[in-house]
Amino acid sequence: MKKFTHIDNQGHVRMVDVTDKKPTERIAVAQSVVSMNQATFEKIQSQEVKKGNVLETARIAGVMAAKKTSDLIPMCHPLNITHIGIDFYPDKDTSSFRIESNVRIFGQTGVEMEALTAVSVAALTIYDMCKSYDRGMTISDICLLKKSGGKSGIFERKTNNRDKRL
Amino acid sequence: MKKFTHIDNQGHVRMVDVTDKKPTERIAVAQSVVSMNQATFEKIQSQEVKKGNVLETARIAGVMAAKKTSDLIPMCHPLNITHIGIDFYPDKDTSSFRIESNVRIFGQTGVEMEALTAVSVAALTIYDMCKSYDRGMTISDICLLKKSGGKSGIFERKTNNRDKRL
Amino acid sequence: MKKFTHIDNQGHVRMVDVTDKKPTERIAVAQSVVSMNQATFEKIQSQEVKKGNVLETARIAGVMAAKKTSDLIPMCHPLNITHIGIDFYPDKDTSSFRIESNVRIFGQTGVEMEALTAVSVAALTIYDMCKSYDRGMTISDICLLKKSGGKSGIFERKTNNRDKRL
Amino acid sequence: MKKFTHIDNQGHVRMVDVTDKKPTERIAVAQSVVSMNQATFEKIQSQEVKKGNVLETARIAGVMAAKKTSDLIPMCHPLNITHIGIDFYPDKDTSSFRIESNVRIFGQTGVEMEALTAVSVAALTIYDMCKSYDRGMTISDICLLKKSGGKSGIFERKTNNRDKRL
Amino acid sequence: MKKFTHIDNQGHVRMVDVTDKKPTERIAVAQSVVSMNQATFEKIQSQEVKKGNVLETARIAGVMAAKKTSDLIPMCHPLNITHIGIDFYPDKDTSSFRIESNVRIFGQTGVEMEALTAVSVAALTIYDMCKSYDRGMTISDICLLKKSGGKSGIFERKTNNRDKRL
Amino acid sequence: MKKFTHIDNQGHVRMVDVTDKKPTERIAVAQSVVSMNQATFEKIQSQEVKKGNVLETARIAGVMAAKKTSDLIPMCHPLNITHIGIDFYPDKDTSSFRIESNVRIFGQTGVEMEALTAVSVAALTIYDMCKSYDRGMTISDICLLKKSGGKSGIFERKTNNRDKRL
Repeated sequence: MKKFTHIDNQGHVRMVDVTDKKPTERIAVAQSVVSMNQATFEKIQSQEVKKGNVLETARIAGVMAAKKTSDLIPMCHPLNITHIGIDFYPDKDTSSFRIESNVRIFGQTGVEMEALTAVSVAALTIYDMCKSYDRGMTISDICLLKKSGGKSGIFERKTNNRDKRL
Repeated sequence: MKKFTHIDNQGHVRMVDVTDKKPTERIAVAQSVVSMNQATFEKIQSQEVKKGNVLETARIAGVMAAKKTSDLIPMCHPLNITHIGIDFYPDKDTSSFRIESNVRIFGQTGVEMEALTAVSVAALTIYDMCKSYDRGMTISDICLLKKSGGKSGIFERKTNNRDKRL
Repeated sequence: MKKFTHIDNQGHVRMVDVTDKKPTERIAVAQSVVSMNQATFEKIQSQEVKKGNVLETARIAGVMAAKKTSDLIPMCHPLNITHIGIDFYPDKDTSSFRIESNVRIFGQTGVEMEALTAVSVAALTIYDMCKSYDRGMTISDICLLKKSGGKSGIFERKTNNRDKRL
Repeated sequence: MKKFTHIDNQGHVRMVDVTDKKPTERIAVAQSVVSMNQATFEKIQSQEVKKGNVLETARIAGVMAAKKTSDLIPMCHPLNITHIGIDFYPDKDTSSFRIESNVRIFGQTGVEMEALTAVSVAALTIYDMCKSYDRGMTISDICLLKKSGGKSGIFERKTNNRDKRL
Repeated sequence: MKKFTHIDNQGHVRMVDVTDKKPTERIAVAQSVVSMNQATFEKIQSQEVKKGNVLETARIAGVMAAKKTSDLIPMCHPLNITHIGIDFYPDKDTSSFRIESNVRIFGQTGVEMEALTAVSVAALTIYDMCKSYDRGMTISDICLLKKSGGKSGIFERKTNNRDKRL
Repeated sequence: MKKFTHIDNQGHVRMVDVTDKKPTERIAVAQSVVSMNQATFEKIQSQEVKKGNVLETARIAGVMAAKKTSDLIPMCHPLNITHIGIDFYPDKDTSSFRIESNVRIFGQTGVEMEALTAVSVAALTIYDMCKSYDRGMTISDICLLKKSGGKSGIFERKTNNRDKRL
């Protein structure tokens, strides 16, 4: 059984010591999904509301949030991420947007939390931009899709019922 | 049809002008759900891993994140929130924790985004604390449960299939 | 001769005490100008580079920076600004963009620094977005155009040679 | 024609991927100019107002702002800058101060934005410290003077009419 | 016996709810003491090292830190403080500086933590500025000297042996 | 006599240039002491107040503050620390807790300020958590216990009367 690396022997919270780790290339890919009313979905997509502004604002918010990850998640190491990309995949059938982030670094620890923070804050920003119109929007399916680099090696999420959006 | 208050007539992003709004008491309640393997769930709940530390760390992270909301969500007003509470509801059947936040202020604008940011970052913190053990955890069902105060009045989420956790 | 309100009798830096000031409505309008090569100007304006993205990113950066003013300018009071708007005025003849910000609050002290910070960071963001193409861009004409509210009353900038852009 | 490295093929904003870049020594030198009334200029320079406090506060603000660059400029990479110096050059004839910053790093990307942010915030701080006395001050001539390191090599600003202050 | 207002009935950390509190004028005065070698003390005081720069930098750092208090102390409310002053009292006999802060607000909760954070970070800054010369410096006697405003009324520290510096 | 590395030849504050320094392993150990009434001490230690929550919150606050050091101390370099640990040593005889931090990095400059910031903010957090019960608490004995790495080599604090707590 694997151990919780954030909890020491007495159960106290701790920041994992990565001082002696070798830097390697690290990649993490994460996603979130924002579901909404059909009218809200169409309004974002249509030219009426200058499509793109809601998503561009969310994209910028997600990138900036990824840079703040260690300020938000108590035991995260501060990292100088070298790339963060965010893409949106609209799904008309479910009136939702899937958000996917891709974060890279050459460093001593992984960037999963940065990728997850990016898609979470991008989703919250869509909510904020549209909330006067649709307070019932839901954010779901926030998960890690893939990671590589480091001792724990490659992780790829196996799709299942919960992942029907992938 | 309601308008997008964050988009002006030319479709440009803007911060809503609330200068002339009367301050009123505002409350917002939001939730998120973190689902995991049964073994991870039990480890958090059991004495072995000093139950409470993972959740207490997530609670603190959520409170601190709520205070940073206007720094994360581009068009949010900076606010001096006067209360933020975060509670955890474990559900053994689904090996998941439901997180509920309650935010209050006496001010000119609502605190929905603060409540949503709190539950999102609390959930991300649970992920971070346990990720070495269970990378497949999922965060879902992030939504506003209730808000009151302000011109738009009271909102209460109607439960439906998506809300089976409530 | 007016006194420097940030310097006390011994010449030490100090934050002005506004505890006993009555809150009033405060408005501040400021500007900056970003000058560039004609090719860079046209590229931003044309559809080729998806006009609007550079400026929308600058707008968002300016709004977010206004919220951080008291974190950047040592003796500024933290304020909960209630509105920040940013507009861009392209000038083909000089291959430049004039940026104008408008900040409002109902509070005990003015928002000039917030308005000036907004146009400065919006201008820096345009520089950053286009710097791989035109490192010689210049930012100039950063000044307060107007303020109202508070004991010092209304200020309106008189145009002169330096203000030929207005 | 060079491309905009911050805009991808679909025109979406993106953080440039520098993961695979070799670290090299990077230097950037930037400037800004703050112009004011003669009386304000003399007051800062004279012993009356404890000359140096206004400028020392501006210097500290500029150094601290350089460290926040990636938090202010949306697509900037977070960087651990290894040196930031700020100097002031008073010019009695024009009642103005030229501010020059010098930033260094051994890293994968340049520090132009850090140098420009430093001189911008130092200038804004001078404005803030003296604004009760002279609301008409202007900040201008913000530009990159020099950069070295990285694939794009050395850049040195050619002086022209706009640069009469150099 | 008084209760811990930050701990709820189940012992969970919480931010105290001050939504219904009446705003009143609040003042807090706090201190810290930095003790050092005689040579370091004299160097700070003498003209050689441009006396005042170490202390002015510490003063600015203390003011800026007071504004960040709610970002540092997990359960502190975000507050818009309306005044922060910091003074230094050199004591030649003990080669030390006593730092005193004075913070004011008209608000719903007190500013003790802001006053204590200000003197702590001002002291740490003195340490940082002089540490290459004297690594053995000690910071001590950080305490609240006085507070007024709010339901708990006036607090004044009674001097005792520990407070010999007052 | 050693020089003040933060002050240049004209006495101006400056960030030390470490661009050309070789990265080495750096460790810093620091401490603080929080003294309180016996009743407060017992309440924290006993099960009544869910012992551990006060200290766990202080631990998390200390870790998060260490990551913000360069944002608090004006001339500190931004650093990506690779480990921060915080431990508490209760002393029943003096009704006090000694807090010890341990910070590590492989980098170009030391982490003394990070270690000192961690113990200072952890101590302030204990104060905040218990202040409604005991406003007379004092924080003292903040000092560097040990450092290694870098050109200045190893430092170990010699115990003396002031260090009776070690």
